[in-house]
Order: sequence, then structure tokens, then C-alpha cells
Amino acid sequence: MMNGLMMHCNLNIISIMRHAMTVHAEQEIVSLKSDGTTVHRYRYKDAFKRVAQFAYALDQLNISQQAKVGTLAWNTHQHMELHYAIPCSGRIYHTINPKLLDEQIQQIIGDAQDEVLLVEPENLALLERLYPSFKPFLKQVIVLGDIDPNLTASFPFQFYEALIQTQAESYPWPDIDETQASGLCYTSGTTGQPKGVLYSHRSTVLHAMTMSMVEVVGLHSGSVMMPMVPLYHISAWDMPFNAVLCGAKLVWPNQFAGQTDKMVQLMQQEQVDISMAVPTVWTSIKNHLLQHPQIQLKLKRAISGGSSAPLALIKSMQDLGIQLENGWGMTETSSLGAINRTALISENFDQQVVKCGRPIFGMQMRLKDLDGTELPFDGIQEGVLEIRGHTVVQQYLNASEEQKQQQANQQWFDTGDIATIDAQGYMHITDRAKDMIKSGGEWISSVEVENAAMGYHKVHEAAVIAVEHEKWGERPLLVLVSKDNQSISHEEMLSYLSTLLHKWALPSATVVVKDIPHTPTGKISKKQLREQYQHYFQQLSAV
Amino acid sequence: MMNGLMMHCNLNIISIMRHAMTVHAEQEIVSLKSDGTTVHRYRYKDAFKRVAQFAYALDQLNISQQAKVGTLAWNTHQHMELHYAIPCSGRIYHTINPKLLDEQIQQIIGDAQDEVLLVEPENLALLERLYPSFKPFLKQVIVLGDIDPNLTASFPFQFYEALIQTQAESYPWPDIDETQASGLCYTSGTTGQPKGVLYSHRSTVLHAMTMSMVEVVGLHSGSVMMPMVPLYHISAWDMPFNAVLCGAKLVWPNQFAGQTDKMVQLMQQEQVDISMAVPTVWTSIKNHLLQHPQIQLKLKRAISGGSSAPLALIKSMQDLGIQLENGWGMTETSSLGAINRTALISENFDQQVVKCGRPIFGMQMRLKDLDGTELPFDGIQEGVLEIRGHTVVQQYLNASEEQKQQQANQQWFDTGDIATIDAQGYMHITDRAKDMIKSGGEWISSVEVENAAMGYHKVHEAAVIAVEHEKWGERPLLVLVSKDNQSISHEEMLSYLSTLLHKWALPSATVVVKDIPHTPTGKISKKQLREQYQHYFQQLSAV
Repeated sequence: MMNGLMMHCNLNIISIMRHAMTVHAEQEIVSLKSDGTTVHRYRYKDAFKRVAQFAYALDQLNISQQAKVGTLAWNTHQHMELHYAIPCSGRIYHTINPKLLDEQIQQIIGDAQDEVLLVEPENLALLERLYPSFKPFLKQVIVLGDIDPNLTASFPFQFYEALIQTQAESYPWPDIDETQASGLCYTSGTTGQPKGVLYSHRSTVLHAMTMSMVEVVGLHSGSVMMPMVPLYHISAWDMPFNAVLCGAKLVWPNQFAGQTDKMVQLMQQEQVDISMAVPTVWTSIKNHLLQHPQIQLKLKRAISGGSSAPLALIKSMQDLGIQLENGWGMTETSSLGAINRTALISENFDQQVVKCGRPIFGMQMRLKDLDGTELPFDGIQEGVLEIRGHTVVQQYLNASEEQKQQQANQQWFDTGDIATIDAQGYMHITDRAKDMIKSGGEWISSVEVENAAMGYHKVHEAAVIAVEHEKWGERPLLVLVSKDNQSISHEEMLSYLSTLLHKWALPSATVVVKDIPHTPTGKISKKQLREQYQHYFQQLSAV
Repeated sequence: MMNGLMMHCNLNIISIMRHAMTVHAEQEIVSLKSDGTTVHRYRYKDAFKRVAQFAYALDQLNISQQAKVGTLAWNTHQHMELHYAIPCSGRIYHTINPKLLDEQIQQIIGDAQDEVLLVEPENLALLERLYPSFKPFLKQVIVLGDIDPNLTASFPFQFYEALIQTQAESYPWPDIDETQASGLCYTSGTTGQPKGVLYSHRSTVLHAMTMSMVEVVGLHSGSVMMPMVPLYHISAWDMPFNAVLCGAKLVWPNQFAGQTDKMVQLMQQEQVDISMAVPTVWTSIKNHLLQHPQIQLKLKRAISGGSSAPLALIKSMQDLGIQLENGWGMTETSSLGAINRTALISENFDQQVVKCGRPIFGMQMRLKDLDGTELPFDGIQEGVLEIRGHTVVQQYLNASEEQKQQQANQQWFDTGDIATIDAQGYMHITDRAKDMIKSGGEWISSVEVENAAMGYHKVHEAAVIAVEHEKWGERPLLVLVSKDNQSISHEEMLSYLSTLLHKWALPSATVVVKDIPHTPTGKISKKQLREQYQHYFQQLSAV
């Protein structure tokens, strides 16, 4: 093999900071304060001085080079600074969702063995509950804020602002090898234990570069980006790195993404032209704008992720002059792995626009049927979506020896989704593989049955799960919450669904319940439903 | 060190082809035929079938994996296909400028030891002259075109179209290691011997990704790009890779970039909205558009490189609705390394717009003064421009053992340019280091003196070189061609220049000549002038 004779420079996060400082030093970063009203405003050059200061602070606190440094924090300029100070000084940032259940947080931090935790003042109470189990590895707790004598805890802690203010403002950044770990995020996992995805400097920089392409996010120094997705969800879909690489103005909404009036006001005040959020947030904003037609926003692009935004929402937003673009990604794909730039769709708009979109550069996709045969990209045939790429996980952190061996050689990552891909590259997720019901050699999509059932006027919420069945292997069970406590019979549902679904997809039983269990992130907990109902048909026959 | 746990996928040219085929298979490539009038038109998916076919042909011809495959060819779809077939099958493409002098072509091909040469039919005559010296290493000559029985040579050759037509249309592309060499281009070198720059798959892909950013070139699938810079000049500034990565429509103008009417007609016909050329081509197009006000173009962006486009040209183009953007790069920087997106300039437009522009992501720059001290980026202090980056050469091909050892450890590449960089990152080249005159501890810019001299009404062309001087070390010598053979005295020039230049920068002598020597690429050959005049002052005193 003959090698090229070009320089090898590491694709590390320091290189993003360096470029931004050369070209975009004067760009603004705005951060909504915890009062929800006033803002903190400074420039890239100010931010990176503070980044240097916190890197010195970590050194002074004797935090080792491989240490994981956890954050339980909102979307603020401070949390963004941590995304540079920690990895650029050779450590690993670890974003943790403070809204998870205590057990989950305990499990995640215990698995990561974070040596430092940086928390918002209001999350100190959470640490108070969990501190005993962290004591063996936790060296420092730092509260993100100014000194506040009213804040107390049973364990020692420091204040971020006090810690950095005396430090020097420029740091001799090392040239970190691109393969080195830079960040850690756990899958929220609707099923099973949370699993840690350990990003490298290389995967992070390549993701930020790919996101910069016009048909992905395509920010530039004229953009004003407000990430409403939390930094604890895959670093707000890469915005600390991608937006800074592109020199965009950043607007951090603190913990107020759920407060529509605050968000709209902030967008107006800071002239936000692009933002990211889950579909429910966009629905609220759309409703707010419809109710207040006098509000004029500069918002042009609304990137949506987490789940697929429906056509009606996309069209309403379009009427308001805002392109709503579906994006797709996972913790395991460093956030965005596909995006639907609706402006590019010239034919079959209604059909194409609800899809997840086209893979970003470097993201390979393939579809496998039940037998493992690769399926063509015809937009029709559904298969298990497998992916491969620079920004895709190879192994989870702390995998067992057995898993490690298995994962080390795997060329493709199984997303667990069922999808189609069409000739233009548009990928469409039709279901989760584990939510598919394998009935007598045929696949039944639980999502399809759920969507059909949701159309019935008496149904408030519907979930369909696979339940063991003696004859068919699995059969669909329909679990319903009715509107206003109305009664719904199985026959009534069959009669409604029979015109909408193939015969074999009709549920074998209907159960009306008061509540359907949800995960902490608001999704239906199929796991809990399965545990509860897995022997439903056997129990029926036993009765 | 703790490594990240993400997949390692090679940054190779195959990944660009794969992405384009998934997402942009239907995009068009248009290529002006050799008649200069009709076009060849096909799609990415057709191009990549032919790419596979030529890869098979190379295998069948037993061309080894490390072979260098040279091209003496114009901007056509075939030449673009070679940019994929050769490196994606593990070989190294080597673009050669057919317009160089025979000795230079002989030297370059001899240094590269190309095993295959692909030539336009009209370049076969050139090969006929040089073939004997290539015989020891050259295995195949392939003419880019259909079988033409009228074409003959004293050596065996094949026809590209005949060679590929029987091959299979899909190829089992290997997963090439990203460090492997992919392409080769020699510096045209105004001084000294041409030197080979050996690009890697990694440097090529990273360059194509960076070019995709909005503030660099920022193409997308709605763009129509016509590269008027030749593919033999650093692969038309990366367009085979960058434009295809972005899914742009490509329009290849064959060898007709110098024929303004043809270019304007092609732009009109294909709705070209962005193009690249040297300033002289843009001047011709600007003049043509001024003379033909009825012509309506979609052209919005004109990227200019090779030398800096002057303010007057930029403003005239602006009046025509076209942004002319200066770019800067070298063979040693994989083409574009900085670009001036004029649309971003809000203050001091006239001053900023003529600069080379801001470094692309991954391109580091620093300025050194004569003592090697690093200078600040204040837009005022001039120093030697040194660069570092993924797309910067580490070593030249076939360097001597001594050079290799020296180059292997060099962190920074000395561009040989004298430049300033301002606080916004705008880099401005003020001179070539070797054209600077070191007079009594002061630097004199030959460009500054030349520009001043060019303002004199009797001067047609001016060149200033450093000439050895007993007292001052070096002193500027002014070499002039006068308008209409008028006589110009040294005193006359001094009197004119004295109000424009510092006293120490005034030339010590003026020589009026009939012609100033030029390089094959049209630049003044300072090398020849220096050879001729280096002892001018000594000779004067000797007389």
C-alpha cells in the first residue's frame, strides 16, 4: 500500500474551538437565565476564555485524564462551555437527564463512575438522595452558578463561577488523538437497562462537519439557532459542536422549552431563524402562533425529532411560513443520522414529507428481511434497518466480555427499527422490530393497528403488543383507554377496524384500561405492557 | 488513553460515490463535446456504472494496485469518471497539464512513473514526441473517446469507450484504508522543478466535506456548478468530489473555458448558478455580459482563484448581480484553503473583498516575521504565511532522503507567501516571500513597487526583482516594457514613484526591455529575470 503524503491532523474538538476563534470570535451566545425572563449574553471569545478557566480548574482539582465528568444541567451557556472544557482537556463529558427516575440516574452514574458531577442548583436535592451510592468514585460536586450561601448539602460542593473566576484565560490545549473518548450519553431505553455510548473526538468532529452540509442542517454565521432539545439528549443534537463550527449565533432556552410563550418571546427577541424540538413542542408553538396572529417570527426552519411529525402539523407550520423537517437519529448515531429537507421535495409531497429523511453523508443503511436477505430500496419492502458509519456506535460502554467480542466484529448496527427506503434515499420507519407481531409467518405492525384504533371516536389512547399464542406464535392484543370512561367492546373495535386492516392484523382481544403505562420520556412502555399481558391468551384458555 | 467506542469507517472516495448513489442517483452531469456545441448528458447513476466498467478494465489490463494512472485531458465527463475509477479501485490518478512545455511533461511523468496514460485524441501527438522516454514504465496508452481508425501512433494504444463497453456495471469496491494515496498533482512551480503532491483518500474526503460548508462553497442538489478551472489544476478545485458529495448538477466545459461566448451560452442553456475560474476568465465574461445586456444568466456566484481578483472586477460583477468571491489555495493545500464570501462582509467592503478570505475549517494559519517570531492577527503586520491542516502536504513525492527527514517532522508548511491576517480571520497575501527584497534589514514588497510602476502612463508591464547589492544586501531592480516603444528613463520613474513609495523602496535602477519572460501558466517568470539580472549592480560597478 502506498500512503498519501499529506499531514495527519487530529479530528478533535479543539480544532472546532480553534477555527471558531479564528473566524467567528465575535459571534454571540445568548442564554436564558433561570428567572425565565432575562438573558446572559456574550461572545464566542468570552465563552472560550471561560472554557480555558474551567479546564484549569479541573487540573487543579486533580481530575484525572480519563475521568468522566457528569452533568445534570439545562440548556445554558455554562452547560455548553462544559462540552469544550471537559473533552478539550482530555476528559469525557457525560450528560445525564435529571428528569429520569432516581433508580435510573443511580444506575447510569454508577455505570459511568463519574468523578465529577456538575449540577444546576435545583438538582442538588436529587444528588442529596443519591449521594451515598456515588461516594466510592465521586470526587467533586460543582453547582453551576454563583456562590449561594443558602444552598446546602450533606456533602461538600463548590460553585462553578467561583471556581473559574481566578483561573487564567488561555490554556495550552493538547493535541488530542482523534480516537480518544470525548463524551458519553446513555440510551434512555424504552426497554432494558440504559446503555452508555462513548463518542470519540473523531466521531464528534465528523458528525459536526456532516451536519454543516446544506442538505443536513447547514448553519452559517448568519444563522440564529435555538436548540429546544435538551443538552442531556445527545448534546442537543450536536449543537455545541455543529453550531460553533459554523459560527452561528446560539440561543440557549435553559429549562423552558416546554413554556411556549417564553420560547416564542425569546425567538422574537433574538431573531431565531432555525430551531430543534420534538413534535409536541412544535404543536404547542404552532397553536400559540395560530392564537396570536400578530406575532411575527423570523423562524424559517423547525427541525423535529424524537418521533415523526405528522403531515397535518407539517402543513400547518408551512401555512405559517415555517418548514418543519423530520429528522431521525439515536443516541447510538450521535444524534441526527437522516433528515427530511422538505424544501427538496417536488413530487408526492404528502407521502414523502412524513418520512425520516435521507441519510447524512457517511451513514450507510441497509434493510434485512426476517431471513437476513438484503432488501431493495424501493420504498415498499419493509425490513430491519441496519446502519454503519463514522458516527455509529461499535460497542456499548462496560459491555460484558461476551458482548464485547460479539460487538467488536460487527460491521452493522441493528437499530431495532422496521423501515423502508426509497430510490431517492428517503428512509421511513414503520415500526420498532420488537413491536412487530410475528403471527403465523406474517409480520403485523403494531403501529399500524394502533393508528387505526386511534381513529375510533371513543378511543383516547391505544397500544398494541404481541402476546404469546399457542397456534399463531404471537397475536396482537389491543390495549385501550377510552374517552370519558365510555365502554368499548372487542366486537365494536373489530367491526371498526375490519375495513382498515387486513384480516390477520385484527387484534385477537381488546382490553380497556384506565391508564396505559409510560416511560419517563413520555413514550408508551411496551415493556411494562408485555410483562403484564404476555400470557393473556394462555390465562384466557386456563380460565 | 481511553478510546471512544464508535465505528471506524474509512474516509475514502468510495464513500462519496456510495452516498451520491443512495441520495442523488438521478442528478445530471452535462459535458460539452469536442465540437464545442453539442453536449453529452447523463446521470450520476450512469456515470458510476461506467466508473465500475473502467475499474474492471484496469484490472483486466493488469494494472497494479499502487500504479499511477496519468491523464492529459480536458474537463469532460470521462475525465471526471477517471477521478473515481482509478482511486476507488486502489490506484492513483495523476492529472497532468497538457499545455506545459514538453520538458516539463517529460519530467513530471518520468518522476511519477505513470503505468497508464489517458489522453485526449489531440494529445496523442504530444505523446508521440515523448513516448521513447516513457517506454521503461508505461504499460498502456488509452485515448479518451470512441474508436477512431484515423488516429494512429508509433506505439500501441486503446480506446476508452471500446475498453469499457463490454465490462460489468457494478464493481465490488474494496474498503480502502483512508491513509492510502488516491491522487497526484504536480506544482506548476514558477521557480524550480515541479514537485508531486500525493493526496490521500482521507485528505480528499475531508477537503470535499469542508468545501460543503455554507461559508466555503456550500453546494447542494439544487446547485448547477460549472468548473471552468481545468481538472488538471488540482482536479478543478475538488469538483469531482465536492460537487458529487453535495449532489449538485455538474456542467463540464471541455477545453473551452477560454471561449467566452461558448461559456456564456452553456451557462444559459444549463442554468448554471455557480462557477469557478481565474480572474482573466471572469474579466472576459464580465465584458461579454456588458456588451450583450440582453443575456440573462442564473449565475449568482463566481469563485475566483489563481490570483486575487481586483476590486473593480468584483464591483462590475456585483452590478451584474454576480458575487465574485476570491479563493486561495495551492496544489499543496488540495486546492481551496481560504475563501472570501463577499456576502458576509458588512464593514469596509472595498478593503476586505480583495483579500484571499478566511481559512476553511481544519486549515490553521500563522504568520512569522523574519526572526521567526509569531505575529498577531491584526490585519497590519506582514509575515511569512505558514499553514497546517488535513489537506496540507507533509512531504513531496520522491523527495531526497535529506528532504524526507526534514519534512517528516515539519508541523507547519511554509507557503512562501507574505501575508496579513485580520481579527475576523481574513488572510491577505501581500507578496511572495522570494519576491520580497531584503534591503538593509527592511523588507520591500516587489508587488507594491510593481503596482506603483504600472500606474505610470508609459508602462505596459512591470516586474521588480531583488538584485544582489554590496552595501544593502539586496536592492530592487525595476524591469519595464513600455507602451508603444516609448523611452522611459530611471529618473522619470523615480520622480513618478517618489510620491507613491517609501524612499527605501524606490528601485535602484530601471531596465526597459522588449519582453518580460512568462511561465507557461502566464505568470511573470521571476526566476528567469533573476538569472538574467542577479549580478546587475556588480556588473554596473565593474563597467
